Order: sequence, then structure tokens, then C-alpha cells
Amino acid sequence: MSQIDCDTKDEVINPQELTSCKVVDYMKLVDKFGCHIIDNTLLEKFEKVTGKKAHVWLKRNIYFSHQDLDTLLDLVADGKEIFIYTGRGPSSNSMHIGHLVPFMFAKYLQDAFNAIVIIQMSDDEKYYARDSVSLDECNKLAYENAKDIIACGFNPLKTFIFSNLETVGGSLFRNIVHLMKTTTGNQIKGAYGLNLSNPIGQITWPMFQIAPAFSSSFENIFHKKNVTALIPMGIDQAVYFRTARDFADKMKYPKPATIHSKFLPGLEGINTKMSSTSTNANSVIFLSDNAVTIKKKIGLSFSGGKNTLIEHRLLGADLSVDVAYQYLTYFLEDDDKFQQITTDYSSGIMTSGQIKQILVDLLVELVNTHKKNRDLIDAIVLRQFFDMTKNDL
Amino acid sequence: MSQIDCDTKDEVINPQELTSCKVVDYMKLVDKFGCHIIDNTLLEKFEKVTGKKAHVWLKRNIYFSHQDLDTLLDLVADGKEIFIYTGRGPSSNSMHIGHLVPFMFAKYLQDAFNAIVIIQMSDDEKYYARDSVSLDECNKLAYENAKDIIACGFNPLKTFIFSNLETVGGSLFRNIVHLMKTTTGNQIKGAYGLNLSNPIGQITWPMFQIAPAFSSSFENIFHKKNVTALIPMGIDQAVYFRTARDFADKMKYPKPATIHSKFLPGLEGINTKMSSTSTNANSVIFLSDNAVTIKKKIGLSFSGGKNTLIEHRLLGADLSVDVAYQYLTYFLEDDDKFQQITTDYSSGIMTSGQIKQILVDLLVELVNTHKKNRDLIDAIVLRQFFDMTKNDL
Repeated sequence: MSQIDCDTKDEVINPQELTSCKVVDYMKLVDKFGCHIIDNTLLEKFEKVTGKKAHVWLKRNIYFSHQDLDTLLDLVADGKEIFIYTGRGPSSNSMHIGHLVPFMFAKYLQDAFNAIVIIQMSDDEKYYARDSVSLDECNKLAYENAKDIIACGFNPLKTFIFSNLETVGGSLFRNIVHLMKTTTGNQIKGAYGLNLSNPIGQITWPMFQIAPAFSSSFENIFHKKNVTALIPMGIDQAVYFRTARDFADKMKYPKPATIHSKFLPGLEGINTKMSSTSTNANSVIFLSDNAVTIKKKIGLSFSGGKNTLIEHRLLGADLSVDVAYQYLTYFLEDDDKFQQITTDYSSGIMTSGQIKQILVDLLVELVNTHKKNRDLIDAIVLRQFFDMTKNDL
Repeated sequence: MSQIDCDTKDEVINPQELTSCKVVDYMKLVDKFGCHIIDNTLLEKFEKVTGKKAHVWLKRNIYFSHQDLDTLLDLVADGKEIFIYTGRGPSSNSMHIGHLVPFMFAKYLQDAFNAIVIIQMSDDEKYYARDSVSLDECNKLAYENAKDIIACGFNPLKTFIFSNLETVGGSLFRNIVHLMKTTTGNQIKGAYGLNLSNPIGQITWPMFQIAPAFSSSFENIFHKKNVTALIPMGIDQAVYFRTARDFADKMKYPKPATIHSKFLPGLEGINTKMSSTSTNANSVIFLSDNAVTIKKKIGLSFSGGKNTLIEHRLLGADLSVDVAYQYLTYFLEDDDKFQQITTDYSSGIMTSGQIKQILVDLLVELVNTHKKNRDLIDAIVLRQFFDMTKNDL
């Protein structure tokens, strides 16, 4: 989930922390949020229970941290139903490739668990957070961005996307009311860094993001069943679901399980986060970019290769700061090929230019496939994903 | 409206101000809230436009203050539709006679303007404000209290009662979102005395009470029409609708007009407010009280008569502190009889006992009639009042 940008959440991850987003700092966050590293034992259990190979993002520590994933796997092993909850704050018309990561992963989880996926489009929250857009525009963007999400391949019979603006009410509002009763302003201030100078909408927003983590919020979908949620998210969102877990205790609701990812870095350096509001347009690959633009932007990306070819052959690249290499950890699925590249680039056998070309080819294919899938989504398909009653008999 | 008790709103009317609730202090409040006294000229205009005699509560300065009532009368004179908005925080099973006053007055306004009445039952707000009740109980009380409201004689075809818990969503939530965007926590603190130590539900509540003041919140009822609201309320609620009027400016919505009442005093003295949470049960006449109880309670009420009959005959009663006499200003409609009592009691011709007996007879009749009317309200009638779509073709 990426409804709230890191840099608006000073209390949790401030920009200083984010500019030093190396492995050691992610570990600090895990401690801070009371989370746990996803280790090999847990991944083996995941593969055994789901009967599916662990996603490369799990194996490569991109989705690296969790809460209660083991407990959730026990539930699934016992034949219990679970659901996946994720969301998006609809902002620009054109999403970037970093925005796709959580949805590609949620689609994988849907297949792995054969589970219902609930996706909150927080059009109201975007309206609170930005002064330049109207509520109607935010609502319209919810549907535009939904097409990009659907293009990731979700099962239309098991996926429910909703505009928060249009959907708050009924059982969902009931849980929001319970949250608004049991949470004080001081708790919001402590956890989210929001205070009385913020609009009421922002102060209240955490209640609206948390409520969908409970199956009782969706009577049309889950009826009276108590179904546990699994919530994949960027680590910056973990604080929401700490509140959610405390609330579950109070209400005797099933505690949601969570999986946390690192941030996809911006192209200008691995100590930044890809952001569509970046001042540097070359830092971001939009889903609307064509092959020429992608090649240009990747060409300008921060490299860990050496300044001269001789020096590079001798010393090899610094993989930890090389953005193109880091992107391959996301987008090159083939483990053997990835290992070969790791060896050859770090030893200087492969050049920065070669690495960048491999990435360009992958991203051009990703973006083109995505465009093709998106073009297939007409009003009827879109409506089907937004219909909460579609499985009612 | 009486969703928020005076004594929880330190910033607006603190208990000190309330314990000196004499005419002069009401005038101070009028100034403080930027309201205007309802004078004879305005009452004449009211009678001319509505073709109906002004209610005694208007003539006797019980509903004494307003904003834009004159402008609203111009709209009505021009043939424009208006609607009445009022509400109740459903608390105890048994309402008291003070609770009836705003609804008796709203029913009068419905007849005078032939207008739709919208009544918000703030079950969610009562849940935020009280620790001893569950949300289900508050919701149930909304329906119980609605029976007492309906018994005041509202037109079932033109009256819409709603549980806020059940109704927030759609066009109503849309206006709440606009309010939550345009109001900061500091504005809430300044106007309502709520701060970060309050539950989020309480901090946010003003947005939920204000939104129904706009016809655009009820698309099912008003469709796309821009209809101006007239809101009768206790003067302690005026602050809500100052916020509402500022918001109307921002949104280019019709500005709601308001009429403000004084408080029905408690039986122990005119410097108190009748409250079901009073520590003195004898201070309150409940709608469930029988004739014997009413007689006993009125007998114990604070009297402005003198200590001995001789002294009383000589000096007469102090009407300004005599609770029974003050109640007659509310419940004795007959102006001639009321004038006679005023003369005879203040001059000592009538005794405190006689005044109290007249009041007992009036209240016993009021309560008995109310009980009879209430008993006629079955589930079908109740459902009709809660049906927002009943007039849709």
C-alpha cells in the first residue's frame, strides 16, 4: 500500500531515514515496528502450505519482513479461508513501475492462496492530502488507476476494488465508528505524526485505511464469516496495521497478518524512493513511457560501475549502489541468469551499459505487456471489479 | 438539537455561564455567536408569509434568536422550497419533557412551511461520548427515541428520520469528506473545545452533524435541487451551524437559516438545564412518569412564592425564579389565561400551590397524550419514517 508517502510521515520514517535506506536501516525499522524478518524456514513453510514456489521478491528480501505470516500459514494449512487486503491512493493518471510492485505481488498472493483480494482506492484521502485536485478528479483517478491494477491479472471473480468515497457506509462504516471510538487524537499524533493543524480528514484517515483489514467490514462479501486478512505493504505503512492489530484485540476480531517490502529506489540513486512527485522526471519510469524514453532514463540512472573501462575490469561494479542492478532484483525473475549477472558485474566482466540494456529490455516488455492488458479493460470489466455483490446468489 | 450537552462544551457555554442562564446571559450568547434577536417585525413577517399564527414559544422569547430567518422567509414568499433539519443523540430509553420541546417546535415549523423535516439520530455520536453503552444499544435507542419523536405528530410523507450509523455513505458521506478537507483540527478545537485527548469520533463529529444541513447530502430526497435548510436548535448548538454557514460559502451551497431556543430549566431551579443525567431524579419529568410522580416532582420544584401566605399575598411571587411559572410559558398555550396567571401570581392573588396544580394538569395531559400517540407507532409506521426513498416514483 502506498497511500501515504514516507516524507509526510515524519514520526515513522523521516526523509533522513529514507535517504539512508540501506539494509541496516530496514532492519532498524523492523525492530521499531515489532516485525520479524522472513527467513528461509518461513519461506519453506510458505512453499509447503501454498504448494507454490516462493516469489523471487520473497527470496531476494524485497518483501522481507512480516507479522503473523506463520500463524496465517497454519490457518491456511487447516483449510481456513483468508483474504488479501491492499490499496492505492489514486494520484496521477500515469502510474509508475514502482506502483505496480505491490499489485504484482498481491496478484501472486491471490494465486498462491486462491484468496479474495480487496483493494481500497482512497480517493477521499488523496483529496485531503492535495490542494490541487477536486474530489471528482480523485474519484475519476480511482477508476483510471484501477485499470492499471486490473491489468496485473487479478481474478475478476475474487477481486473487489472500491472507491472509499463511494463505499463508506453500512458494515464498513460500523467498523470505522468502532475505530473512531477506541482511538484518541493523541494516539493518532503519536503513531502518524498528525496533529490539530492537519485537516480533520487526514487526522481521521487511519481509521478509514484500517477498517478494511477486517472481514466484518464487508458483509456482502464475507457475510458473517470471520476471515483473517493478509496485508502486503511497503514498510512505511506498517504503523497502520499495528493500530489494526491492537484494535483486533479490543474487538476480538482476527488479527491481520502483514508482509512488508522495501521501497523501489528512484533512478537517481538507491537512497531515494521512486515517486511521481519527484522533481526529477528522469527519476521515474511511468507506465506510459515508450521504449526510447525508458532507454534514455535508464541510461541516466546512477551506476555502480567504474569511471573507466580499465578500472571497471579490474575492480568490478559496486552492486549495492547500482540502480539498474537493484532493479534487476525486482524485474529479472530467472535466478540462474540473475546469479550470473551478479558474478559477472561485480567482477567487472559485464559493463554498466550491458546491465542497463538488459534492464531496458525487461522494462520495455513489462510496460508493453501492461499496456496491452490495460487496453482490454472496458467499462464492463471495470464495473465487474467494483461490484461487491457479484458473488451473491 | 441536543446531541452535545452544554457542560461538555467548555469553549462555548461553560457550566458557569449556564448556571447564570438569565435573559441577560442569553443576550451575551447571541452577541458571541453573531446571531440576531427575533423581534416583532420578524414575527409579523413570519405570520404573513406562513399564514399561520406565530408559535407561543416565538412570542414568549423561548425561541428567541436566529440567523437569516428573514432571508428564508423571502425565499418562501418567492415560492421556494425549504426543509427543516433537526436531530437527537439517542440516550436513555425514557426521554424527558425537555427533549420534546425541539420536536414539538419542528412539527409546528413543518406545518407552517409545509416542509420536509430531516431528523438525524446520532447513535454513533452517543457511542463516542459514553463509555457505558454499546453501539448496538445506541442504535436500538435511536429507534426507541424515534417513536417519541414521531408521536409529536410529524407528517410521515414529509419526514425522514435516519440513524447516522446506518446512513452515512453516498451523497451524505461526500459532503462529510468536503467538510473534513476544509476543516482543520485547530478549527475544531477553537469552536468545540475538543482536542487530541478526545476520541477521533468526537473530534470528527461536528462534520457529521453539519453535513445534513445541506440538501445535496440527500440525493434520494432532494435529487439535484438546491434547498435551503431551516434549523431550530438550542442556542448551545449554534456553533455547529456557524461552521455550516462558513462551509456553505466555500462550497457555494445555500446557507442554512437557524432559530435558537433557551433551555428548559430543571425543576430544582431556573439556573439549571433539565437533563436526564442530572444527579437529582426529581429534577426531571420523564415521558414515562405517571400522574402521581409528576405531581410529586412539581410539588418539590423551586418556587418564587413567599414563605408565608400573608407575606405572599402582600408581596406576590418572584416569577423570574419560579420554575412552575416558567414551565407555563412553555406549556400553557392560552395567552389570555397565561396573562391572567402572570398578573395574579406576581401580585399574590394566586398561590404557588395553585400554579403548580395548573402545571401538573397540563403536564399529565401532555404525557398521557404522548403515550397514547406513541403506542400507535408500530414497526410499519417506524419503517416508513426511516425510508429515504418513500417518495421516489
